[in-house]
Amino acid sequence: MMGNLRFTIKNRSRGCRARTGMLKLKHGSIKTPELMPVATKATVKALSSEDLEEIGAQLLICNTYHLMLRPGPQIIEDFGGLHNFMNWKKPLLTDSGGFQAFSLGLGIEHATGKMSLYFPESNNKSSKKPQKSIVKMTERGIYFHSVYDNTKHLLTPESSIEIQEKLGADMILALDECTSPLSSKEYTEEAMERTHRWAVRCVEAHRTDQALAGIVQGGLWKDLRERSARFISALPVDSIAIGGSLGKSKKDMHEILDWTIPLLPEEKPRHLLGIGVVEDIFEGVERGIDLFDCVSPTRVARVGHAYTRPLLGTIYNKFKFNVTLAEYRNDKRPLDPKCRCKICRNYSRAYIHHLFRTGELLAYYLVSYHNVYFFISMMKDIRKAIDSGPSGFMKMKKEWGIGQN
Amino acid sequence: MMGNLRFTIKNRSRGCRARTGMLKLKHGSIKTPELMPVATKATVKALSSEDLEEIGAQLLICNTYHLMLRPGPQIIEDFGGLHNFMNWKKPLLTDSGGFQAFSLGLGIEHATGKMSLYFPESNNKSSKKPQKSIVKMTERGIYFHSVYDNTKHLLTPESSIEIQEKLGADMILALDECTSPLSSKEYTEEAMERTHRWAVRCVEAHRTDQALAGIVQGGLWKDLRERSARFISALPVDSIAIGGSLGKSKKDMHEILDWTIPLLPEEKPRHLLGIGVVEDIFEGVERGIDLFDCVSPTRVARVGHAYTRPLLGTIYNKFKFNVTLAEYRNDKRPLDPKCRCKICRNYSRAYIHHLFRTGELLAYYLVSYHNVYFFISMMKDIRKAIDSGPSGFMKMKKEWGIGQN
Repeated sequence: MMGNLRFTIKNRSRGCRARTGMLKLKHGSIKTPELMPVATKATVKALSSEDLEEIGAQLLICNTYHLMLRPGPQIIEDFGGLHNFMNWKKPLLTDSGGFQAFSLGLGIEHATGKMSLYFPESNNKSSKKPQKSIVKMTERGIYFHSVYDNTKHLLTPESSIEIQEKLGADMILALDECTSPLSSKEYTEEAMERTHRWAVRCVEAHRTDQALAGIVQGGLWKDLRERSARFISALPVDSIAIGGSLGKSKKDMHEILDWTIPLLPEEKPRHLLGIGVVEDIFEGVERGIDLFDCVSPTRVARVGHAYTRPLLGTIYNKFKFNVTLAEYRNDKRPLDPKCRCKICRNYSRAYIHHLFRTGELLAYYLVSYHNVYFFISMMKDIRKAIDSGPSGFMKMKKEWGIGQN
Repeated sequence: MMGNLRFTIKNRSRGCRARTGMLKLKHGSIKTPELMPVATKATVKALSSEDLEEIGAQLLICNTYHLMLRPGPQIIEDFGGLHNFMNWKKPLLTDSGGFQAFSLGLGIEHATGKMSLYFPESNNKSSKKPQKSIVKMTERGIYFHSVYDNTKHLLTPESSIEIQEKLGADMILALDECTSPLSSKEYTEEAMERTHRWAVRCVEAHRTDQALAGIVQGGLWKDLRERSARFISALPVDSIAIGGSLGKSKKDMHEILDWTIPLLPEEKPRHLLGIGVVEDIFEGVERGIDLFDCVSPTRVARVGHAYTRPLLGTIYNKFKFNVTLAEYRNDKRPLDPKCRCKICRNYSRAYIHHLFRTGELLAYYLVSYHNVYFFISMMKDIRKAIDSGPSGFMKMKKEWGIGQN
C-alpha cells in the first residue's frame, strides 16, 4: 500500500532543477530541500532532542542496522516506536540496514566508502586496508555478523520492512545492495537487479501507513542508472532515493544525478542518500534533490572542525576550519561570526579551543550544535533563495563560490 | 583589603547549627546553604553554561591549578576574566591550586584522597599504588610539575592570589597545604602552621575587591583544628573554608566539624571544601556549613550512576543506581520518578541505558544534567526545610533516612 505522504512543489528555479516543496508526513510537514541530521543509534551524536528542536531540524534519519542489534526492535516497539524512545516528536526516517551491510562488507573488501570521500562508521576505523568481508549477499537477503558481538544475522527485504515497522518512522527505505566505486560493471548490474527484486518484495511486504522509499542503484554506468531509475519509478513507492556508489569524483556524482533525475517522477520527493558536504548539497539541489542526510556535521565536529560561511574558512576548505589549531588559542571571535546560533552568540573560538585541548566533553557538544545549526540554516537560506525568484538559487550558489574553480 | 561580600543569616534551626542565609557577591546573590558544581577547567563536565543557568545553579567553582596551566591566566585575563571566557554570568569561586598540589603530591605518595573515599582527578587514575610525589613543599611555596607537559612551576601565596585576580572570580581562596589522613600529627602541624603563614601572605598580597576565603587545616587532631579555626577566624578574610584531611570515616568528619565550627565567626559564610555526597551534605548543613562543592554529581554520571530521591536507589546506595545494569534495559521510568528536570520529563532509563551501552556522548550529558539538577533541587528543599520552622531541617533529614543506620 502507499504510505502517509503528500508532496507539493512550491517554486522552481529557471535553468536548473532546483525546487522548493512541502513534504507532509505522519508526524508533521517538512519544507524542502532539507538536510536531515543522522541519529545513527537513535541519537544525533552529542545533541539532545531538545537541541535539535531548538536548532530547527525538521526530520532525522536513524539506522536500522544499529537499532536492530542495540537495543533491538522489540524494546523500541514496546515504547511505541522510535519517536517515544528517543523523544523526537517530528518526522523520522529509517534506512533499511543495507548501507551498513555495504560498509561492513564490500566497503571493507574494497577499503572504500561511497565516493572514497567518506568512510562509513564501522568497526575497522583504524585500518583502511582491504579485509575479509563479514557479509554475504544472497537472493534471500544479507547474512552478516553483528559488529557488537559477532552473532550471525539475516536481513531480508521482508525482515527489514518488519523491523522498520516496529521502529515506526514516518518514512522507511527498501532494502538495497550498495556497490563500491571499485565494483565491476558486471557485479554492479547483478547487485542492481537483485536490488530491484528486493524492492518489489519490500513493496509486497509493506503493510503500514509509513511512507516507503525505493532506491535507485546502478553505480557509475549510465545505462544501469537509467534502467534503475525507470524500474524504481514504476513501483508504487512514495519517494525515490538515490543510493550506491556515486563514482570516484564530484564530476561522477554530477553525471549520475544528471542521468537519473530526469527519469524520476516529478511529483515524488528525491533523497540523495548519505551525501551532505556543502558543495554536494548545492550541486544536488541544482539537479533536483529534495532530501539529504549526512553524518558529516557531527562527525567532523568531534575532531574540532567547525563550519563557517563563505570566505571565513581556510584556504584548504572554504567552509570549515580546525579550531584545535594553535592559531585559535586566543581568538575572541565566535566559530562563525555570521552565525546566529546560541554557541556563536555565547562562546569564543579560544574557549572551544581550550575545551578541545583539555579533552572536555563540552567541546563536542558546542561544535556539533553549531555545525548542525550551520547546515539547517544554510538549507533555510537555500529555500529562501529558490523562493525569491527563478534565478535566486544560482545567484546564491555563486555567492557561496561553489562550482567556480 | 576586605572583598565585595555580604552575608546575612535568615533562619536557624533549633538543636543544631543549620541555617539559611543570603550571600551577596559581585556577580549576584546566593541563597545558602548551597552546593556549587565544579567547573574544573572552566566547564562543568558535559554541561553548558545555559544548562547550568536552566538548572538553577547559583555559583560555580573553578580550579586554579588547571587553568594556570591550560589555557593560562593571561588568556583568561585578556577575555576580562573567567566569567566572559566561559560565559557564566553569576558568581564564581576559584580555589588556590593548593588542593591539586596535594592530590598530585601527598595524595600520590599515600595513594589516598581526602577521606580515602574520593580519589582526586590526577594523572595516575589507573593506579592507586603509592608513587613518588611530583610536588615539593617549601616555605616559599609549592614546586610542582605540570600534569600536562611536565614543565616545572612554583605556586606561592602571592602568585596564587595574582593568578586568581587574573581569573577574576567573585571569591578566591588562600593557598593552603592539604595533608592526607595518613600524615603524622607532627607533619600535619607543620603543614598547618605553614598554611597559616601563607594565609597571612595571601591577605597581604590581596588587592582587588574579590572576596577572600581563609582555609582551616589541622587534620584529624582536635587541638590542631581548634588552633587553626582561631587563627584563620582572626584574619581579615571574608569567608572561612574548611579543608584538608577530614579523617578516615564519616565519624571523623563529623567530629572535625563539631570542633571547628563553634570557633568560627557566626557572621561569615563557611565552605566545606570538596565534600558533597548526599549524607555528607546533610551532616554538614546540620553542623553549620553554608557552602559545598563536589565533582561527584558529574563524575559518577559519566559511569552511569544516577541520583534518585530516598527509597528509589539500590540497597547499596539509597540515593543512586547504575543505569548501565541489564535490569534497566527495558525500564520505561525516568531516572528519578520524583524529579522534575527536563531529562526526567523526557527520557527513560531504557533509552539512557541504550546510550551507555552503545557509547553515545548524549548519555554523559543526560545523567550529568539530571545529577546536578538533583543536588541543586535537594539544596533548595533543604533551605525550604530550614525556613519552614526550627525543626524543619531535622525532620527532612529523618525523611531522607540519613544518620539512622
